[in-house]
Formats: sequence, C-alpha cells, structure tokens
Amino acid sequence: MARSSAYKEAGVDVEAGGAFVREIQHHLRRTHGPRGLDNPLGFAGLFRLDHDRKLFARNYRNPVLAGCADGVGTKLKIAFAMNRHRTVGVDLVAMSANDLIVQGAEPLFFLDYIVTGKLEKKILTDVVAGIADGCAMAECALLGGETAEHPGDYPDGEYDLAGFCLGVVERNRIVDGTHVETGDLVIGLSSSGLHSNGFSLVRKVLLEKAGLTVEDHVDELGGKLLGDELLKPTRIYVRPVLSVLRYYRVKKVVKAIAHITGGGLHENIPRVLSEGCAVKLNRDSWPVHPIFALIQKTGKIDTDEMYSVFNMGLGMVMIVAPYYAESILAKLRRAGEHAQIVGRVVRGKRTVTIE
Amino acid sequence: MARSSAYKEAGVDVEAGGAFVREIQHHLRRTHGPRGLDNPLGFAGLFRLDHDRKLFARNYRNPVLAGCADGVGTKLKIAFAMNRHRTVGVDLVAMSANDLIVQGAEPLFFLDYIVTGKLEKKILTDVVAGIADGCAMAECALLGGETAEHPGDYPDGEYDLAGFCLGVVERNRIVDGTHVETGDLVIGLSSSGLHSNGFSLVRKVLLEKAGLTVEDHVDELGGKLLGDELLKPTRIYVRPVLSVLRYYRVKKVVKAIAHITGGGLHENIPRVLSEGCAVKLNRDSWPVHPIFALIQKTGKIDTDEMYSVFNMGLGMVMIVAPYYAESILAKLRRAGEHAQIVGRVVRGKRTVTIE
Repeated sequence: MARSSAYKEAGVDVEAGGAFVREIQHHLRRTHGPRGLDNPLGFAGLFRLDHDRKLFARNYRNPVLAGCADGVGTKLKIAFAMNRHRTVGVDLVAMSANDLIVQGAEPLFFLDYIVTGKLEKKILTDVVAGIADGCAMAECALLGGETAEHPGDYPDGEYDLAGFCLGVVERNRIVDGTHVETGDLVIGLSSSGLHSNGFSLVRKVLLEKAGLTVEDHVDELGGKLLGDELLKPTRIYVRPVLSVLRYYRVKKVVKAIAHITGGGLHENIPRVLSEGCAVKLNRDSWPVHPIFALIQKTGKIDTDEMYSVFNMGLGMVMIVAPYYAESILAKLRRAGEHAQIVGRVVRGKRTVTIE
Repeated sequence: MARSSAYKEAGVDVEAGGAFVREIQHHLRRTHGPRGLDNPLGFAGLFRLDHDRKLFARNYRNPVLAGCADGVGTKLKIAFAMNRHRTVGVDLVAMSANDLIVQGAEPLFFLDYIVTGKLEKKILTDVVAGIADGCAMAECALLGGETAEHPGDYPDGEYDLAGFCLGVVERNRIVDGTHVETGDLVIGLSSSGLHSNGFSLVRKVLLEKAGLTVEDHVDELGGKLLGDELLKPTRIYVRPVLSVLRYYRVKKVVKAIAHITGGGLHENIPRVLSEGCAVKLNRDSWPVHPIFALIQKTGKIDTDEMYSVFNMGLGMVMIVAPYYAESILAKLRRAGEHAQIVGRVVRGKRTVTIE
C-alpha cells in the first residue's frame, strides 16, 4: 500500500507491525480464560474481576488491586548472544508475577511492552510465545501490550522488554509481614539458577574478565553450555504459593513472603520484617547452584556481596508460624517445589544474618 | 558501603538507585488518594477497588478491569535534544490513559518502567515528576514502577519509557461501538499538536532532510522554537470525556470513542465502527495545527498518508447520538476542550473518508 511509504522510509513498517500482531493472536488466546472479554480491536484489554457464580471463591468482598512493573534486565544480552528468544518471555512474567504473590495477590492479567529497532517478526514472535508460556505458568491472561519500533536505537535483532502484572487480593488476606514475630520459621524455595538479576555483574565477570563465551562447555557446571545455564528461565512460584495461601483460609499462617531479586537475600527479606525482628539463615540448609560459586571464584567477589546481588539458590522465602511449617513444606513439595526450612526469626533490627 | 563494589564496577549503582527512589517518593505521594494503600517497601503497589461508602458512585456491581500499555516512542529523542525531560512523562501517561477512557473506563493507577544506561538522578527525577503531572491530570495514582540500569545500552542521559494504566468500568457501561448507526454524529476534540506518534517520520523530514534543529525558530510556526512545538505534551482527555460519560447515566448517548494515535484517523476510527458503518469527515470543520502543514510540505508527503500517521488536529473523536450532540459539545467546551462536529456516520465498510 502506498499509504505507508514515507513512514516506512523513516524506518517504521506499519504493515509488518500489523502482520506481527496477527501472528501473535493465538499466543494471547491460549492464555485467556472466561474472565477476559473479547476485544480484538479495542484500545484497552478488558478483564472481568468477578465470575458470575457468586458462591465461587474468586468473588471479592473488598478487593485490593495489586500492580507490578518489571523488566528482564541485561539477561536479554544472553538471549541475543544465544539467538534464543523464548525463555526471556518467561523471565519477564516471572519478575512481576512473583512480586504479586508475595502480597498474597492472585495474578489476573499481564501486559507487555517490547521495543526494538526494526521489527523482526520471528524473533519477537518467539518472545511473545515465551510471555504466553509464562502467563500460562502464572495462571494469568496475556491481555495485550505494545510493540514499538524505534529505528536505529537497537542493534539488529535486539530489543528491550517490560511487563506489567495486575492481581487482586481480598483486603483482609493481604500478606504484609505485620504479624512476623520471634520464633517464626523461614522456608526457602529453590531458585532455578540466577533468575533475572545481577546479569551486568555476571557478564562482566564471566564473559569480559574470564573471557568465556555462551558457547563454552564449563567444567564447574558439569560440562554444561554456559549459555544454557545463564538463560534458564526464572522459576514462577504462583501455583505453589497460592495453593498454600488458599489452603489456610483463616489463621495467620503465612506471615510474610519475599521474592529474592536484585539486592538478594540481604535486601529483600528485610522489606517484609516488622520492627524488632531479624532473620538468621543457616547457610548449609539449602543447596547453592554451582553457577554462584563459579561467579564468586572467577570474580573474586566478597561473600556478603554475593548474597546482596544474587538469590544464591533461594528464589522465594516464606516466613511462617512454626506450628504449620512442616505441613506447608509438604504442600510445597507436593506442588513440585524444592523447599526447606532455612532459618528463623530472631529479635533484631530488620537485618539478615547468614551463618 | 563495600558491599556493592563489584556490582558498581559492573555499571550498576545500587545506592544511586536507592537515592533516586527516595527522591521520587513525594512525586508518587502527590498522586495518591484514599484508595491507594500505604506500602512503601512492598513488592507490589496496592490499590482498593471500592470506597468504603457503599452509596458512592465509585463502587462497582460488575467491575471490568481495563489495562493499557504504551510508550512515548521516538518523541523521546526530542526531549534528549532539548535536554528537557518533564513533559515526556505527561506523554507517557496520556498514551495509556487516553486509551482507557475510550472504553469508558476510569483510570485508577499507573505504573512506569524506565530503562537507562546510567542512572542520572536529575534527569530521571524530572521524568517521574512529569509522570506524576500526567497522573494528576488523568486523576489516577502513580502506584510505582521500575527503574532499570542497563550499563552501556543507552547514550548518556538517554532512556526509554513504558507505562501501564489500569482502569475500571461497570460492565454495562463499556463503550465499544456496537450501537453506532447511520446518522450518528462525530465530535472531534482538538489535539495539542503532534502528541506522541509519527516522530520517526517527523525527525526524518524536519531534522534530517530539511536540516532543521530543535533550536531553530520556524516562520511557519509563527517564529516558535521547533523543539517547543515538537515537545508539547499529549493532551489528556480523561476529565472532559469521563464528565460526559458520567453525566448520561442511562441511554446510549456516547456510542464510541477513538483515541487518534499511530495510524491516524484512517486506522483508529474504524476500530470502533460496527459492521455496515463508515465515517465521513468534513476536512474544513476543524483547525489543523501549522506543524502538520510544515511536515507535509517539507516531506512532500501524500495527504492520505498524513491522515494515516498523524492525528491532524484531532486527538480524540466521539461518535454520539445526534439528539445529544449539542449538549455534549457544550459540556466538553465547559471542560476546556476545543470540540466540534467534524463528520457523521454513513453506510459503508468501516472506512473513513475525509472530504
């Protein structure tokens, strides 16, 4: 069509954009349940808060909406180097959805923002397919998003991603740490690896300083390709965590949850501790993936800093009433999580000690 | 603190990030009403859907959530060239909030995503201040967001922005165009200028081909600085549009609304037309800013393409029942809008004719 000639010459291909949007529709649709409203040409994604059947648990008496925004950070550069673009979509959903459940919120829907220099349909379709994978794992609808072309701003085939997740929680079921007290136990849920934080440091240490490439087989990783290890998608904890929260409907059983992202255990756990409380973690109570040892040794990084940048093997921690700890652990394990008691709450000034 | 030394060396300054987050708190707070919950260290922003007082109009019987994600596009490059970073924050909110109200939804809250190479506190604080300005205009809370440092990915002082706006609409009040019929009138609301679309073409034509700079005074713009014209923030239509929608509580008075963004009048109006309807616009019925003539003349761009890329003076159009048109116009004008009847709905195949 002649219409878009000048705009196309300026680097923005409106028709390619349209073709891409058509291509990704089936990925969006496979995440949609009965609560998303059909609105293909609409300006906004529409989603019903309530089900029709009033007796169902998903209707809210005093609903509080919870919103999170996040990106994948420079982990994207590993995807570029591997030319493998699906798993970072899972990472994108994980970063926001895991933040939501920490407050007790059920993820409802997700919107993505993709920006690139020139729209490469195959690459971005993989990204959106991965986002849909992540939404399926997080049990939320991929409601829509924006794909922007900024001609010349990104090298060919590269892009940035941002994601927004919206959730809802009944007001008196918000998990916020106010009931945390001395003697509570800390349950750690294993991470899949690095997740999506600290990659500027990872790349500096392993790729720049040590001169490794993503195609190298690394002895310390059992001969695994470095790129495979680095690109492993962030674990999504929505199902196991919500199954625990839904099971205990009345009492203050799960008192606080922290998603271990940038800032590591040292910065994320204190965000959910009440005044006068601190956490002692037992360093040997959970396994630490070999990738962390490789980074620490290669970069000669102080142990304390490792625990302040990386998750060090724990992607999510829950602070629970001691009486329920074993039963919660059993539920988490039945849901497929590697989980164990990794520490306890002591008197202190909102710090984390690891010994 | 020694803790962040290796990470800082890798280009990510955790303390600068913390200082920035503290700096912007007051901008977030000035957008918060009684429905936002205090959750400064929380992992998610929390927002109450209902007010306490059940008799108030803002409680929902069958709430539908509406979500939009968008960016500012390459208009950001004008902000970089002018080293003026506050108004693009308004643009960011405008792009999503204007999309929401098109469906009849009331904006509730906004989350931003800012990505930069190295966190320049002064610049990004201006951006967030502008986002808060936009949220105040859109009557929504700036609930939070993410500021990401991707070392080396953006030139100094540059960044990209994405925004997410969440709204709510009572299910039987969704505006979706299904009731549009022949004889309905089209009301156009004036834009402030280019808004936030087509900037790759604008820059190609005016800055690259014609060799103008943002510091040039341009005769065709009445001697105005080109950068001032290009950077004018996108008009936010939340108040006038919602005031009209709230006034007519019962009948199908406002049948469709379209936000004129990328794709211009030609692509955005058909998105809200029902089968068998088309729109005829009267070209001389609304004023077109001189910036559009300057772009068209300088770039020798076909008129049809101009109407397919730019808003051409109309930032928002409403399709209304003819009986109410004058009264709606009066309300819009009292709310400060330049609005007029610019066309009507005729029989046709979801096209827009401008004559």
